[in-house]
Amino acid sequence: MADKTLDRSSPDNDVRWDHRWGYTDTRFIVHDDRSIELTGSRYNLAGYRMYDFIPFLESQLGISFDPNNRVDERPDKPVPAPVRNEPFIAALQSAFSERHYSLDDRERLIRSHGQTTADEIYKVMYGELERVADLIFFPESEADVETLVSLASEHNVCVVPYGGGTSVSCALKLPRFEERMIVVADTRRMNKILWIDEENRQVCAEAGITGKDLEDALHARGYTTGHEPDSIELSTLGGWIATNSSGMKKNRYGNIEEIVENVSMVTPRGVVEQAMAAPRVAMGMQPQRLLFGSEGNLGLITKAVLRLHKLPEVKRYGSVVFPDFPTGVAFLRELADRGVLPASVRLVDNLQFRFGQALKPKSTGLKAFESKIQKFFLTRVRGFDPKKMAATTLVMEGGEDEVALQEKLVYGLAKKHGGIRGGSSNGQRGYMLTYAIAYIRDFMAEYHVLGETYETTVPWDKVVEVCDAVQHEARVQHDKFGLPGKPFVSPRVTQLYRTGVCIYFTHGVCVRGIDDGAEVFGQIERAIREKIMSLGGSISHHHGVGKLRKPFLPDTLSPSSIALIRGLKHASDPQNVFGINNNVIGDD
Amino acid sequence: MADKTLDRSSPDNDVRWDHRWGYTDTRFIVHDDRSIELTGSRYNLAGYRMYDFIPFLESQLGISFDPNNRVDERPDKPVPAPVRNEPFIAALQSAFSERHYSLDDRERLIRSHGQTTADEIYKVMYGELERVADLIFFPESEADVETLVSLASEHNVCVVPYGGGTSVSCALKLPRFEERMIVVADTRRMNKILWIDEENRQVCAEAGITGKDLEDALHARGYTTGHEPDSIELSTLGGWIATNSSGMKKNRYGNIEEIVENVSMVTPRGVVEQAMAAPRVAMGMQPQRLLFGSEGNLGLITKAVLRLHKLPEVKRYGSVVFPDFPTGVAFLRELADRGVLPASVRLVDNLQFRFGQALKPKSTGLKAFESKIQKFFLTRVRGFDPKKMAATTLVMEGGEDEVALQEKLVYGLAKKHGGIRGGSSNGQRGYMLTYAIAYIRDFMAEYHVLGETYETTVPWDKVVEVCDAVQHEARVQHDKFGLPGKPFVSPRVTQLYRTGVCIYFTHGVCVRGIDDGAEVFGQIERAIREKIMSLGGSISHHHGVGKLRKPFLPDTLSPSSIALIRGLKHASDPQNVFGINNNVIGDD
Repeated sequence: MADKTLDRSSPDNDVRWDHRWGYTDTRFIVHDDRSIELTGSRYNLAGYRMYDFIPFLESQLGISFDPNNRVDERPDKPVPAPVRNEPFIAALQSAFSERHYSLDDRERLIRSHGQTTADEIYKVMYGELERVADLIFFPESEADVETLVSLASEHNVCVVPYGGGTSVSCALKLPRFEERMIVVADTRRMNKILWIDEENRQVCAEAGITGKDLEDALHARGYTTGHEPDSIELSTLGGWIATNSSGMKKNRYGNIEEIVENVSMVTPRGVVEQAMAAPRVAMGMQPQRLLFGSEGNLGLITKAVLRLHKLPEVKRYGSVVFPDFPTGVAFLRELADRGVLPASVRLVDNLQFRFGQALKPKSTGLKAFESKIQKFFLTRVRGFDPKKMAATTLVMEGGEDEVALQEKLVYGLAKKHGGIRGGSSNGQRGYMLTYAIAYIRDFMAEYHVLGETYETTVPWDKVVEVCDAVQHEARVQHDKFGLPGKPFVSPRVTQLYRTGVCIYFTHGVCVRGIDDGAEVFGQIERAIREKIMSLGGSISHHHGVGKLRKPFLPDTLSPSSIALIRGLKHASDPQNVFGINNNVIGDD
Repeated sequence: MADKTLDRSSPDNDVRWDHRWGYTDTRFIVHDDRSIELTGSRYNLAGYRMYDFIPFLESQLGISFDPNNRVDERPDKPVPAPVRNEPFIAALQSAFSERHYSLDDRERLIRSHGQTTADEIYKVMYGELERVADLIFFPESEADVETLVSLASEHNVCVVPYGGGTSVSCALKLPRFEERMIVVADTRRMNKILWIDEENRQVCAEAGITGKDLEDALHARGYTTGHEPDSIELSTLGGWIATNSSGMKKNRYGNIEEIVENVSMVTPRGVVEQAMAAPRVAMGMQPQRLLFGSEGNLGLITKAVLRLHKLPEVKRYGSVVFPDFPTGVAFLRELADRGVLPASVRLVDNLQFRFGQALKPKSTGLKAFESKIQKFFLTRVRGFDPKKMAATTLVMEGGEDEVALQEKLVYGLAKKHGGIRGGSSNGQRGYMLTYAIAYIRDFMAEYHVLGETYETTVPWDKVVEVCDAVQHEARVQHDKFGLPGKPFVSPRVTQLYRTGVCIYFTHGVCVRGIDDGAEVFGQIERAIREKIMSLGGSISHHHGVGKLRKPFLPDTLSPSSIALIRGLKHASDPQNVFGINNNVIGDD
């Protein structure tokens, strides 16, 4: 794997968009017949015309879609000349060959942002970034990282770890007031699997490996880590740890902190790691636990050991339709009390349910007939209101016996709550949408519609209240700023816990004709987060804090907790080499 | 609950032994017919004569048991006069009424040690402690703790948190070179349940509540936290967090760090806590994660929020007998790959299997007949060697369907590995022994036999090797020190993980006629831990580091990891108010 990439600045410059989400073979386009299509053949949703999308959008956003009113990406993106710390550059040049670093404008700009819509993507594509990286470094080993950090300490340079670039919390946004030279360390050449221990079910991989590469390699050997964040194609192992990532199938495999057994991080004071990767140890205070969520503040993660599972014998999708969202929540509530849960259980609201339908191809023949029968049954026979129905989607994994029990428990309980089994293809469809959503965001942005996703943890008794309140607040804010039409706000419950859930919102607004549309959207987002937290929601379930949610930390941690972490940072990195200033560290 | 205890120095001075383990109504005694009996009616094992115990012991330890050769507990235990920091005492007296503190010799001595055999119990009962607490403080609220810590900071006094006193890692051993006044804060008056949120399945309790009191109160409401450390009767919520405790039923309920959703700790810089008790949050670096395993070094834990589960519909015990220990391990190895596991799965070796049998009453009538039939079947029909057989014990909880599936999976797999189902009463018996073992230790100590338990995490491919190596090393060390007879060393696998297990060893040696027997036993333990770690075992699975395992930290964490935690301690408690000097902090 590594060989192929050594002589290129970035392993995937050729296949990934510079700034927008994902792969260059994939984007939504509009046809003359007002159908839209996802190009390429990478996704199941690609290669056919979707006729219902634009009408659905127009009705939901209360606007008319004009294919000719497009915003074009700025071609002449401004990139300031780099801050040059000459003694550092000289030292770097004598320590490394040229393939290890770049001062190229494009390379620098690509790695000066994450994927936050308003504050990062919109700015870089249509406006200007406030701070751009001065040099990109491409470490190929832990030793390279140690040398870099040592030189940075010596010459007072700021180092920023960079993985898949998929952050949506402004964690990769560079501190605008940073006057030192900023070196972004792109970890993606460190993408090797170092060892697999089949007997003890462990894999050790370098931190720059993407989820897709890791899982492809493991699948070939009959294993999986089971970690499936929505960004799995692009995000990296190191990034998962640094953000405290969550996977879709955490019921079976756990979240990242339950999957990773050892982390190595290069800090200005040396390598923080455990001697042994063990499932569970009482070793006193465990420094490793702080590395989850460190968001680049403490050091650069170079490798990690993860738990392996054999690929499941059986994997089945499923779905259940409920008359409305609160009924679906009541079903989840009871399901969460069971010891046996499907790997993934989600609940989408009516809007997202219909969103999924709007991305279907035109049904013909038997399929159309079946689809009509299904609809007839749900609406006429069972009296479900098509504008209220909500759907639960399921991924079940395990031995045949296990999956059979999951099905029995889930469908039995669903029936009790008035749910109707909706078939496996509808279930699978729900998950396909996950990978398409960011491409839709970038497509819509070209037509003045800004979209963002955000998430929170809430206790059970607040699920419906928080969903309603976010929708209400979005309308209030929309009107306050005089935006055209109405907001699209759609929640889904993506993770179940004993004591609550993760709610994941998709939010879109049209800013056509509005000055500073992105800024307005950012303000609306903050108002909504305030509302969420006032009702007992958390600062974030898995996206993290970054810089986007810094203002909400005082509502999250006691002052002494914040002081504790700041004290730790100061003790471990007194020069602030890792000066990315995320979460409790520094100012934005 | 609280009212009853307010005017007593300690809530359980009347019912607990001052120094040995457990309750005063319970102890093993020898009858003239050389049977032994557990007094009282607290345990299932109590109230009948066990005839096989002494013969079993004699054969396993290679010694003859002489009921008349007893060591008596020292009646005149030396307690030095307290170090008195007069300004602090005066400040304390003006801030609190007399019921809040004690300078009494007995109260001080009781709380100057944990339950580590060689270095604590043996010393306090038969010798002398190196350092004794100077004053005992009984906080009744978080505000009391804050006042205490503030006064201690002001007057340069050392504060040591104290819960159930069940530590077996010398975590409660007071630093012998501490010249400041040492105040031990006994948290057990802080034993209230502050609230229960049934809707969101959470309970908030004060840190001094014992596991038994917590579970009794929850059971009455139909709930459980599911946390069952072997010390559950005596140990406290705060102690569980401070040691990073593990519960027997962690497969269903998780270990302590997976059960607790919020912790409040009073530190010299204020209260460290989260605003919200949520199942899962990405909040950047999460200070709370450091509190697990803090072992008294950072502050005093005052309360915590834990997840609740409804009491399971079904609870069933089970057991499987295997021809030998390695076959049992192979069975566990395959079982651990399943998604559905019984709440508890243990594997005891042959010695422990027979130990359990030796505590049975004399069988008569039908029972004896059945027992003989069973033995006949195992040994004659199936050819199991009674000196090699090992047994797996099971606790299964959940809905009827879940438990039925667990049974199907477990017994199906057991059969594949040549195991024979051994019935539920044998299973239950295995767990009863857990609560008796510490009483046996104290009984044996009176007859010159020292016993200790220790545990470790090991990867799957080292389970049998580590068990064998510990047994071998125990014999080598035994002979090296010229101890009488032979060592009793018996492992059990108590916890399964994907990547390894916890092995829990019971070790006994006769030191009759040996000078410094306890010191010798301590040296043997260290040699064994060295052996365990050289083979890839961890420093501890759940007992923690304390002072006992300090020497092994450099083999556990990188120097930078240790420096990180020391930096944190220095930033948060620069005066070292919490000067107990456990794990990476300070010297012994």
